[in-house]
Amino acid sequence: MYTFSNSVKKLRSSEIRDLMSLANKPGMILFSGGMPDNDMFPLDEIDAIYEKLTPQEKKIAMQYGPTSGLPQLLKSLTLFLEKKGLPVSENKLMITTGSLQGINILAKTFVNPGDTIITENPCFIGAVSAFNSYEANIVSVPLTDGGMDVDKLEEVLNNLEEKPKFVYLTPNFHNPAGTLYSAETKHRLIELLDGRGIPIIEDDVYSDLYFNEEDKEDLRTFKEINPKGIDICYTGSFSKIIGPGLRLGWMLVPEAIYQKCELIKQAIDACSPSFTQVIADKFLQSGMADNYIEKVRIEYKKRAEAMAKVLNELLPDEVTFTAPRGGFYIWLQLPEGVDSTEILQIAIEKGVVFVSGKTFDPHGVKNNFIRLSYCNTSVEKINEGIPIVVSAIKEVLDAR
Amino acid sequence: MYTFSNSVKKLRSSEIRDLMSLANKPGMILFSGGMPDNDMFPLDEIDAIYEKLTPQEKKIAMQYGPTSGLPQLLKSLTLFLEKKGLPVSENKLMITTGSLQGINILAKTFVNPGDTIITENPCFIGAVSAFNSYEANIVSVPLTDGGMDVDKLEEVLNNLEEKPKFVYLTPNFHNPAGTLYSAETKHRLIELLDGRGIPIIEDDVYSDLYFNEEDKEDLRTFKEINPKGIDICYTGSFSKIIGPGLRLGWMLVPEAIYQKCELIKQAIDACSPSFTQVIADKFLQSGMADNYIEKVRIEYKKRAEAMAKVLNELLPDEVTFTAPRGGFYIWLQLPEGVDSTEILQIAIEKGVVFVSGKTFDPHGVKNNFIRLSYCNTSVEKINEGIPIVVSAIKEVLDAR
Repeated sequence: MYTFSNSVKKLRSSEIRDLMSLANKPGMILFSGGMPDNDMFPLDEIDAIYEKLTPQEKKIAMQYGPTSGLPQLLKSLTLFLEKKGLPVSENKLMITTGSLQGINILAKTFVNPGDTIITENPCFIGAVSAFNSYEANIVSVPLTDGGMDVDKLEEVLNNLEEKPKFVYLTPNFHNPAGTLYSAETKHRLIELLDGRGIPIIEDDVYSDLYFNEEDKEDLRTFKEINPKGIDICYTGSFSKIIGPGLRLGWMLVPEAIYQKCELIKQAIDACSPSFTQVIADKFLQSGMADNYIEKVRIEYKKRAEAMAKVLNELLPDEVTFTAPRGGFYIWLQLPEGVDSTEILQIAIEKGVVFVSGKTFDPHGVKNNFIRLSYCNTSVEKINEGIPIVVSAIKEVLDAR
Repeated sequence: MYTFSNSVKKLRSSEIRDLMSLANKPGMILFSGGMPDNDMFPLDEIDAIYEKLTPQEKKIAMQYGPTSGLPQLLKSLTLFLEKKGLPVSENKLMITTGSLQGINILAKTFVNPGDTIITENPCFIGAVSAFNSYEANIVSVPLTDGGMDVDKLEEVLNNLEEKPKFVYLTPNFHNPAGTLYSAETKHRLIELLDGRGIPIIEDDVYSDLYFNEEDKEDLRTFKEINPKGIDICYTGSFSKIIGPGLRLGWMLVPEAIYQKCELIKQAIDACSPSFTQVIADKFLQSGMADNYIEKVRIEYKKRAEAMAKVLNELLPDEVTFTAPRGGFYIWLQLPEGVDSTEILQIAIEKGVVFVSGKTFDPHGVKNNFIRLSYCNTSVEKINEGIPIVVSAIKEVLDAR
């Protein structure tokens, strides 16, 4: 018979996918999903947008668009990103079918089978899948409270026989770790990578969801800092600021990299959905986006605080976490050697789901962590579900 | 500095893209685009669908969906495909972000760099880009009036040192050649490929757009014929039966292949847009799709006949074509050695655009062909534009 390609032989289904199937079980409390709350989508705003679309706009919505994105959305997104301080005019902007597609395209742009790339550990599982699908050799560097361990990265760079093709980072409200890189870590990373010809892929889907105005300095992205000696490939998403169902994201990258990315996108899906691009454009243009982000920021903060409060009250001392300053996640660190999958099994029996740590280890090993999402669950359900998680944790800890 | 991957170094921007930029020039008559007419989209139907969506449906539209597609759309699409005679229950169905994504995913599933695959010559340019992006070694087999030249394919198979990973075919209303494979060619291909372990990728985006009921027997797809000794990977699209802006297609493939494809899709864009999937589901479910397809079929037939009529009246004898029996295109064959790019340049000056033949040669050489699309231009404009194309052809032929 036929044989499959080498790259596909390595791919495995992720635990998250399997857990998703539990989401339909009635009564389950879900701390597993990295998706916005169904009840928080801006449905009235989308209705208002749809009602006002002209026949001409509807025709555009139904037709193919340019590979780079609809011109009107590129324009409104440019304004949105410039307001955030990003150097849009010095780069090229492309609309992607979700930000994962942007990461996938960038991986394909740089990676030959066996090439080394550098990620954080833990790391966003979607990016790991994309890198594995191109047979990258993933070298991971631990994440600390303030961001990637810069000393470790330096050590890794010194020991590598070949230059890595890129460093992939999620500096603002990391998935799964929730980490916000400190301004200091960002500047140390820039110093370390300056002039080495190693691009940074900066995955920035959560930075709008900050909880504290005083974090503004830490929140400055690599792209905003705009270091002259490093090419920053910046990816973002409409999933967290409108809805994932639109399947829209973007990349903002230097011209030479953009040219290659556009050719790859032509061969993947030709263009992103015009239908949802028309809606996203109106959402940005009208200012609805700013109001909506403001609203969800307040709600996520409330949930994060509720979850942190119950955890602080109930968790045994040997389980630690850093209170989130934005984003979707709390990352519990358990004592070395504890298997969070055991905890998960108990929790599922008791009606609560989360994601175990090894899902986010690019090497699929380290499992003494738990990712809890507060994005998709009400404060009431958080107060009900977290004690169940904690009791499952205690059960496993006590049995050691 | 950094280096790009090997695969991306080979990719080139296509002529179609460059021609698209002419589409905005006022007054240009476009025989270039392979897209439905803006004025024929079912806007009222989509409005009616949107108005009736419940809040619950709108929430689903805004959220991530399963990688394989929204369950309700998989269900309504199953009924739609079963009505066409396809063996859905023996296979697995996946919603893709346009049918090009399906082809891309299948290419990634099978192709290692340097692997041989077989295509028609001419061939759909999007598929060629996808195959090139995985560094496939493309061996092309000429298309005759009745479909792929089966004798040539046999010769190619006998001479190849390694088994090709798949044969990629567009049997029903080929892009660019407009060809409808005869039932005989289909059966000869099945006989030839039976039991060899070479899957067929059957690209079937145009078969609903047939002009004559009496072609029904020829129109039976490989997937419908369902040969036991060949794995048929069938891809289709909503682009021609609703609108490309939805960016939705599908693949119907054997389970073992599906498993790999789903993992790849997870790493590309996680899932297709829920927003447009909700709409596509309602469009199929309500029966609007059948009515709409019926309507556009009549209109495209009218345009095809108008174009064929003017061509028959005006073309010199040495330029030939087969009158289309469905689909979007007429494919003019010019005498050997004539360069259709020269003709294109003259035509553009006179206000008409088409696509020159070498665009569709997987090897980018053979240029004594012209693709004329009638899908996107009114009968009036066809009557105005075709004489201009013919005069440009004559100008170049006369100058020999």
